[in-house]
Amino acid sequence: MSIQQRDSASEIQLVTEILKQRFGDRLHTGQSMREQHAHTLTYLPVQAPDAVVFAHNAQDVQWIVEVCAEHGCPIIPYGAGSSLEGQLNAPDGGVSIDLSAMDQVLELHPEDLTVTVQPGITRKALNAQLRDTGLFFPIDPGADASIGGMASTRASGTNAVRYGTMKDNVLSLKAVMADGREISTATRARKSAAGYDLTRLMVGAEGTLGVITEVTLKLHGVPESIVGGLCNFPTVADACNAAIQTIQYGIPVARIELLDAVQVGACNSYSKLSLAERPTMFVEFHGSEASTAEQSKMFGEIIADCNGSDFEWTADEQKRQVLWQARHDAYWAARSLKPGTDALVTDACVPISRLAECVEETRADIEEHGLLAPIVGHVGDGNFHTSVLIDPDNAQELQAAKDFAERLSLRAIGMDGTCTGEHGVGQGKQAYLNDELGDTVDFMRMIKTALDPANIMNPGKIFI
Amino acid sequence: MSIQQRDSASEIQLVTEILKQRFGDRLHTGQSMREQHAHTLTYLPVQAPDAVVFAHNAQDVQWIVEVCAEHGCPIIPYGAGSSLEGQLNAPDGGVSIDLSAMDQVLELHPEDLTVTVQPGITRKALNAQLRDTGLFFPIDPGADASIGGMASTRASGTNAVRYGTMKDNVLSLKAVMADGREISTATRARKSAAGYDLTRLMVGAEGTLGVITEVTLKLHGVPESIVGGLCNFPTVADACNAAIQTIQYGIPVARIELLDAVQVGACNSYSKLSLAERPTMFVEFHGSEASTAEQSKMFGEIIADCNGSDFEWTADEQKRQVLWQARHDAYWAARSLKPGTDALVTDACVPISRLAECVEETRADIEEHGLLAPIVGHVGDGNFHTSVLIDPDNAQELQAAKDFAERLSLRAIGMDGTCTGEHGVGQGKQAYLNDELGDTVDFMRMIKTALDPANIMNPGKIFI
Repeated sequence: MSIQQRDSASEIQLVTEILKQRFGDRLHTGQSMREQHAHTLTYLPVQAPDAVVFAHNAQDVQWIVEVCAEHGCPIIPYGAGSSLEGQLNAPDGGVSIDLSAMDQVLELHPEDLTVTVQPGITRKALNAQLRDTGLFFPIDPGADASIGGMASTRASGTNAVRYGTMKDNVLSLKAVMADGREISTATRARKSAAGYDLTRLMVGAEGTLGVITEVTLKLHGVPESIVGGLCNFPTVADACNAAIQTIQYGIPVARIELLDAVQVGACNSYSKLSLAERPTMFVEFHGSEASTAEQSKMFGEIIADCNGSDFEWTADEQKRQVLWQARHDAYWAARSLKPGTDALVTDACVPISRLAECVEETRADIEEHGLLAPIVGHVGDGNFHTSVLIDPDNAQELQAAKDFAERLSLRAIGMDGTCTGEHGVGQGKQAYLNDELGDTVDFMRMIKTALDPANIMNPGKIFI
Repeated sequence: MSIQQRDSASEIQLVTEILKQRFGDRLHTGQSMREQHAHTLTYLPVQAPDAVVFAHNAQDVQWIVEVCAEHGCPIIPYGAGSSLEGQLNAPDGGVSIDLSAMDQVLELHPEDLTVTVQPGITRKALNAQLRDTGLFFPIDPGADASIGGMASTRASGTNAVRYGTMKDNVLSLKAVMADGREISTATRARKSAAGYDLTRLMVGAEGTLGVITEVTLKLHGVPESIVGGLCNFPTVADACNAAIQTIQYGIPVARIELLDAVQVGACNSYSKLSLAERPTMFVEFHGSEASTAEQSKMFGEIIADCNGSDFEWTADEQKRQVLWQARHDAYWAARSLKPGTDALVTDACVPISRLAECVEETRADIEEHGLLAPIVGHVGDGNFHTSVLIDPDNAQELQAAKDFAERLSLRAIGMDGTCTGEHGVGQGKQAYLNDELGDTVDFMRMIKTALDPANIMNPGKIFI
């Protein structure tokens, strides 16, 4: 152990003691609590923080940041623990700030279609509280993630094709920066040209620039009519082509999700469905009754054109919920294909004109290398995931999965796409950020260094 | 003149000579050319650059930036000269880089709904080139601004209520940064979580972080049906309330513009119309035939509810063009009310629930102080402009206008709004940025200092 490492460890120890004095039993150092707050959902090795502290308000966060800043102690903000690229790991140790108790709706302005929340509220809890307003918050990454975490990773999910991503739905936010000051990035005006867009800078910064303490979100009216449906295709390419045409014809589809045959099989078994085990598309249309009928009709023509069949659609909410629950459980269904394994989840996103090609090449790659890797995709955005199932203790399997993920990342980048459509960089995509953006990463790093010169904010993420 | 000023002037002189050697007659130092490239559209005093150079490609821009960086010479990027907050002035002298000759469409991907352009192309020229594709670029700030300039000021305009602002419609961009490197901020994927959102950082940076050399835009399908209409109201508050209800009911209106009675009078006279001189709303709906009919019907019910009258609507393109041309000429119509004067144009934007109140208080303020100041507003966004007509040589009139603008900026900020919805900060709003965002401005300045340590990129803008 080098002197520097010893110093750093003893500083962290000191921080833990100081925090203990103030926070008492809201400060935890037990192994199980620390490991729960590290990265547990994927194949990445767990790197637990030294301590976990539960913040109850922005003042708590400021106080913690000030102490950590004084001692050069890393800070890792924690919301619901559902990120997928190692964002919560603590490679240099430090303090995990658990924000889950900061879960209140602070201000609801239905007349402005905005709501201001604390970062720890989850999207489902928020929507439950909005139930009587006729409004909802649409962004839906599958997991019941926290709003602060969703902002931090620039999350999106199944209905980004219509409602955009967190980038489009965060109106402003507050954050405690590395020097302990809490700033507000913007007012509640629907649009603004008042200086640099710090809102969008913090959205997707993965906690590396500050700790988000408040988020003002745009809300949307609950559609008068929601119609859902599914259909299947002989090939993944046919399904992708149907998605491409849907976007090109300007049909304002709310969700358009692809599951390949392997994934459909997994869902059948996990969610007790009996779908044909072929490439399958789940779709949903939002609007007035006339509009959803018009959209469904146009979509029906497109799928007929793309060899789709068995198109069934329903406005029945319960039937829709069963389908979408199955879609949301796709990750767990995939993992159940090979119990006891971990999943390496990829996140390529390409211009939609290249989608069929990218998915087909990836499918062929999976088969060529004998991997078990179901595919699901937010195909309206050109974004798809594969879940490569691996035994993390089997070095050969792990390496094969990593090699596959690298080929896929470079394939997407080679098609003018990105290695990460919505999961962020974290630790999992650090290796590819330079391949994707080159010198641009230097300018990101300059911003990081300017705003967090001591590198205490979620260090070891995004940048290598 | 201090030594530092002399040094700076002689360095700029040296830069001009170096540029002259490379660019020959593309480098101009004549007074008229220099003044044309300064800020000429408003009440702000003209501060001309020392030289104007016409760039033909990104390599030219890089070469100029490298020379300027070596000599600490300010750089002011110039597109079409239509900005309204002094963004083009050269308070510290320097070189204006005219990008108007960089006006090519570089790549059109109709299947992805994207186009990549050089920064000097204007929005009208772009749309002319898109005519046969069935696609269009919707952002419309009135003036035939350049795409690079629109990105730099985070422009929006009449149909942002439906299509968003430049923030929402720039997919990625290239820029030459202060060290001469050209970076690309993102790929062509529809969404990305690959590190900090440098696209959104450059959009609205007003040339203070780099010179935009390429922009990839999202395109939209030309609607099957466009229906326009107008109606008038007894009071501005009634009209605002109609706008508020339209947004709250989720009608996807494409344009919803308010003109107060004074502005309608100006338009009648300037554009040879014969509208009733009452607060008037211009609206437009985009969609399928069924959808625009449905929207018009719902809107008709709202205006009836808000004391609106004389609702006329038309799908006839020529009639619509006459109306919208009049709306776009509102600025010139306002100025024609008092020939020979300049206009101080304000740009407040508030949460829509506060819009009626903010406009009414502003109307009362105008009357109380005996100003001539027509009001137009993108009221669906809570954004409105007043054009205060002043003789810039009359110190008392100028001061009264500035005092009014200050009261309006602080009024908007007091309502959780912004002093600038779409014109940017430039020189005109520097005084209010701290009032609006407080400590947040420090973090913007840290980014500016990190990315442009010698402060050569459009100095004297945004930050005091």
